[in-house]
Amino acid sequence: MNQPRLATEKDMPRVLELIKELAVFEKEPNAVEVTIDMLQSDGFNNHPKFTCFVVEVDQKIEGMALVYMRYSTWKGEVLHLEDLIVSQSQRGKNIGTLLLDEVVRYGKSLGVKRINWEVLDWNEPAIKFYEKKGAKVMRDWDVVQLDEKGIENYLKEI
Amino acid sequence: MNQPRLATEKDMPRVLELIKELAVFEKEPNAVEVTIDMLQSDGFNNHPKFTCFVVEVDQKIEGMALVYMRYSTWKGEVLHLEDLIVSQSQRGKNIGTLLLDEVVRYGKSLGVKRINWEVLDWNEPAIKFYEKKGAKVMRDWDVVQLDEKGIENYLKEI
Repeated sequence: MNQPRLATEKDMPRVLELIKELAVFEKEPNAVEVTIDMLQSDGFNNHPKFTCFVVEVDQKIEGMALVYMRYSTWKGEVLHLEDLIVSQSQRGKNIGTLLLDEVVRYGKSLGVKRINWEVLDWNEPAIKFYEKKGAKVMRDWDVVQLDEKGIENYLKEI
Repeated sequence: MNQPRLATEKDMPRVLELIKELAVFEKEPNAVEVTIDMLQSDGFNNHPKFTCFVVEVDQKIEGMALVYMRYSTWKGEVLHLEDLIVSQSQRGKNIGTLLLDEVVRYGKSLGVKRINWEVLDWNEPAIKFYEKKGAKVMRDWDVVQLDEKGIENYLKEI
């Protein structure tokens, strides 16, 4: 297994496979509207919208972490870890930890005051792991989403 | 009361007052490390890190909403509402709704597939309001934060 490295444009087809693999596992295969083209143009232009790290096993990408900057009204720029995915067949080999380590190193190199991510509240092993690593799980904060149809409906009601 | 408008650099001192007012209310006044300078340079350069809307009452800013783009591995770019603050003395006058309306309009104008924000899970009036507006409150997702000291400690343990 190799250490994590920055992803390139050429890695995006395999990164999208990992994204889709997870969506299938979460029983939402049709929710993925992102395409290879979008990932390649959004992540690798003059003002990339995200940064992606990958881990290879036998020359095949088996894990990825995707991050970008957010803006806290208390702290200023903070790093957000949007997704950390390890291929189903490669679980338990420490790939996730290597990727999280790399994300924290990256946050440190940027000088951010905080790194954020989200976790399912019933995922106790993950929560314990994060807490052991020093992260604070804010159990009283929930995520709210207004989707495309919701945006349309909302605007009709104004 | 005026309709929401885009904030300018000159509004940042008052916007920071609102941020601090809320932090005092949440009993975390010392958590605010953002300064007027940071807000002015981060929000009003060639590549602004956020967009801010404000509402004035009698020529004084009494409400603000701060948003920026995030990147979903399922949807691509999505809009995130980081903070929506109404001055304590001006609650109940519909300022919050005007600001949320403006944020949804802004999201629509950008063509995003989703608008995200976060809510405290015991804030039932807010949750009911959002759900009535068509938003989905994901009660099983928690927010995780690794702060500056946490980043240091994490890296020492690798």
